[in-house]
Amino acid sequence: MRALTVIPQQKNSLSVQDMPDPDEALGDVLVDGLQVGVCGTDHELADGLYGWAPPGSERLIIGHESLGRVREAPEGSGFAPGDLIVGVVRMPDPVPCGACAHGEWDMCRNGEYTEHGIKELAGFAAQQWRVRSEHAVKLDASLESVGVLMEPTTIVAKAWEQVDRVGGRAWFDPKSVLITGAGPIGLLAAMIGVQRGLDVHVLDHNTTGPKPKLVAELGATYHTEPIDQVLQAVQPDVVIEGTGVTSIIGAVLAAAKPYVVTVLTGISNPGDTVDLDLGAINRDAVLGNAAVVGSVNANLRHYEQAAKALTEADRGWLESLITRRVPLEQYAEAFTKQPGDVKVVITLA
Amino acid sequence: MRALTVIPQQKNSLSVQDMPDPDEALGDVLVDGLQVGVCGTDHELADGLYGWAPPGSERLIIGHESLGRVREAPEGSGFAPGDLIVGVVRMPDPVPCGACAHGEWDMCRNGEYTEHGIKELAGFAAQQWRVRSEHAVKLDASLESVGVLMEPTTIVAKAWEQVDRVGGRAWFDPKSVLITGAGPIGLLAAMIGVQRGLDVHVLDHNTTGPKPKLVAELGATYHTEPIDQVLQAVQPDVVIEGTGVTSIIGAVLAAAKPYVVTVLTGISNPGDTVDLDLGAINRDAVLGNAAVVGSVNANLRHYEQAAKALTEADRGWLESLITRRVPLEQYAEAFTKQPGDVKVVITLA
Repeated sequence: MRALTVIPQQKNSLSVQDMPDPDEALGDVLVDGLQVGVCGTDHELADGLYGWAPPGSERLIIGHESLGRVREAPEGSGFAPGDLIVGVVRMPDPVPCGACAHGEWDMCRNGEYTEHGIKELAGFAAQQWRVRSEHAVKLDASLESVGVLMEPTTIVAKAWEQVDRVGGRAWFDPKSVLITGAGPIGLLAAMIGVQRGLDVHVLDHNTTGPKPKLVAELGATYHTEPIDQVLQAVQPDVVIEGTGVTSIIGAVLAAAKPYVVTVLTGISNPGDTVDLDLGAINRDAVLGNAAVVGSVNANLRHYEQAAKALTEADRGWLESLITRRVPLEQYAEAFTKQPGDVKVVITLA
Repeated sequence: MRALTVIPQQKNSLSVQDMPDPDEALGDVLVDGLQVGVCGTDHELADGLYGWAPPGSERLIIGHESLGRVREAPEGSGFAPGDLIVGVVRMPDPVPCGACAHGEWDMCRNGEYTEHGIKELAGFAAQQWRVRSEHAVKLDASLESVGVLMEPTTIVAKAWEQVDRVGGRAWFDPKSVLITGAGPIGLLAAMIGVQRGLDVHVLDHNTTGPKPKLVAELGATYHTEPIDQVLQAVQPDVVIEGTGVTSIIGAVLAAAKPYVVTVLTGISNPGDTVDLDLGAINRDAVLGNAAVVGSVNANLRHYEQAAKALTEADRGWLESLITRRVPLEQYAEAFTKQPGDVKVVITLA
């Protein structure tokens, strides 16, 4: 079968290859791949910056934002041929820590997990793949055109759960959220913010392309002013940081109002050093009970929350997040950024 | 009656004065003051850096770490003459926010609270004071010699509650805690850490004086090595930061291990700027689900938790935290720092 692969941590190794059919050891459910989304981690993999092949393999099949159709599933597995299916990315193997053992592999303590398409487990950018039935989620048939957005939605579902749980440590009744970055993560976070009835603000630097319209269509407010000005105007109760840009993060930390909950979801680079008034930031954080929490990955609970959020969302709006669909053999196009890109999807069927 | 007062925000105004008897409007319980503790906030008040007098008054009676004996209390108030009593510092008046209205004035959003001895409400450094019965806590008679430690203990009880609630957002089974700063807050935080069965480490710069012994007597480990070295060696699951020193805070943020919970309790100064690798800090926080939360003040729940912690603690150990007891009229001595000071107490009786 054909699959999109890299030799991990080797630049210019991204290519579609003939790969062996998926090993039955990978799971009891055999799936025909329909689509995979391309995200920042895939670009890091393609650039040779990240990734680990399965033991004994030179190549790693990439792709972790999955959508497939079940071909074979055992009775009692909860899946039947024809079902739409999304595989969970992270597996709590080989050495489950306490969190992994409790199904919270997204909160893994020991780093001894594997991840489809990233770390030692075949990904989903393949014509066929396998997954454990207890480690996959069935999607409603009506979600076929947008189901590939499930995985990024799980990331924001977890981020919102962090808001609830950290904010919920005392009385909490947030009214406004500022989301920094209008990529797929930011836009899906905004979508859930609107579903929650919040006053949603999204900050990005793009003044053209589809992002301003996508934010406006949600009923949220799009900002391109300087971050300090936006923070001053919005005074958000919640911040979901999605850029990983240290000047943005520094400004968010410096503007904390009492009991603000900030969730960090954007990946930044070590060595990106900033001069911070940590004296003022710490003082305000203490006197204002501010909270900052990092959030990554997702567990089954977040997949269920994400499926609910997608089901409740406007289908046309979700479809317009997917700005390009590129066939597998033209993968290189999918990895070449174009103006107006929001989510680029590779079609596998 | 005699009381220790300042003209708020006026340097060198600290003095014992004859003040009117406490106004009945301040509460239904009349108390004979026994002791007050002196803390960093009191030094800020004495230095003219902070504080607000009650409306219409020039002077503010200071003192928020209280211990008194009930002289008069109405029937049904829960207090009787002779009871040991501690007043709650913060009052959710005059404009309760949502948190204040729910009894969580420590998480106040609008800043419209008052505080005994700090902000617009007479403090407890007086021969007599009044407090609302629903805003005070009765202490077991056996705690007379150490009950003045209640208020700082409430601060750490709240900090530990933050650890529980923020850590408890997913599976959480902490084994070790690093406490930075071996002042009263750090030592009482260490005491509660030991009560919880944790491996407790305390960092301070003092190599002499009572602190190393006080930590050792708890069964905890005292460190004076550089913070980076301690973080590397201990790999704490929880950090309670009590110094407010930005180089310490920066090091703690930079060394976050997966799912670490850091509670900031130390007050720092604006303008204390640090060069931070925010790229690395943010990346590690995201990928490791790290949490940082500021914590200040305490509500009634924390007073109850503190009373329990003090009751369970070794009485002799608690007594040795109080390194000097100074009579009210010699207040100046109490405000002159001496080597070996841990908690200095002013006696009022």
